[in-house]
Amino acid sequence: MQRRCLDDSTCPVARSLDNIGDWWTLLIVRDAMLGLRRFSDFQRSLGLARNVLSARLKKMVADGVMTMAPAADGTLYQEYQLTEKGEALLPVLVAMRQWGERFLFAPGEPHPELIDRSSGKPLEEIRVKNVDGEERGVADLGLMTVS
Amino acid sequence: MQRRCLDDSTCPVARSLDNIGDWWTLLIVRDAMLGLRRFSDFQRSLGLARNVLSARLKKMVADGVMTMAPAADGTLYQEYQLTEKGEALLPVLVAMRQWGERFLFAPGEPHPELIDRSSGKPLEEIRVKNVDGEERGVADLGLMTVS
Repeated sequence: MQRRCLDDSTCPVARSLDNIGDWWTLLIVRDAMLGLRRFSDFQRSLGLARNVLSARLKKMVADGVMTMAPAADGTLYQEYQLTEKGEALLPVLVAMRQWGERFLFAPGEPHPELIDRSSGKPLEEIRVKNVDGEERGVADLGLMTVS
Repeated sequence: MQRRCLDDSTCPVARSLDNIGDWWTLLIVRDAMLGLRRFSDFQRSLGLARNVLSARLKKMVADGVMTMAPAADGTLYQEYQLTEKGEALLPVLVAMRQWGERFLFAPGEPHPELIDRSSGKPLEEIRVKNVDGEERGVADLGLMTVS
């Protein structure tokens, strides 16, 4: 994959994409958030070749998005778990999910719903707000460069 | 790039990634949100080969994320503009940006700040909340499958 490394970019979006911009990475994070822990479970869920999944997981551990630990049940399996950094991707995934629900599904087309388990109710739509809690759109925002 | 088409997946995250999961697409959306309109401006900003940028923009127009229109100044240039679907990616980009700011920059390391232009103040941190406005984390959420 020919891509320029933007790890040294001063744009946080570019740096994030350099870290998690691989298409599979966010799907692995999604599956881990839904409780998957083992290599074989990720493989079954994603239908991904062993070598590709293995390389992705290795990079995610190196990047500090996941950690590897012996299985909780005492077997010889290794389990992958999201770190704080990995769990902090939740708003990215939920925003992506809501965008997909809005624009990529036909009206009434069924799909799994992400819900708050304690109430069984759906989540609030994620919006961009200023520090006073007022919603802001693209035209309201600007970049302030720092020297 | 070997990747399975997940366009028919019932998972909105997978479908979104199928639409915008290309690494460059979100950087083009970012630049368009910051006001870039012309091919040469995107090319300068991203340092991307003409043929790659051209293919990306073409796909984004086909996907309904951008439209192409004659330049507003009456010249022969074509301008690319975000559609409603494209502008609706703002929460995804802001969430990604905030994640990058938090985890991929050293303390005090400078980077451009995204601000609310009317107040000059930064944005609220994006959080996942239930419909009652209570913050929710990974452990609080579940998927409800629909038949």
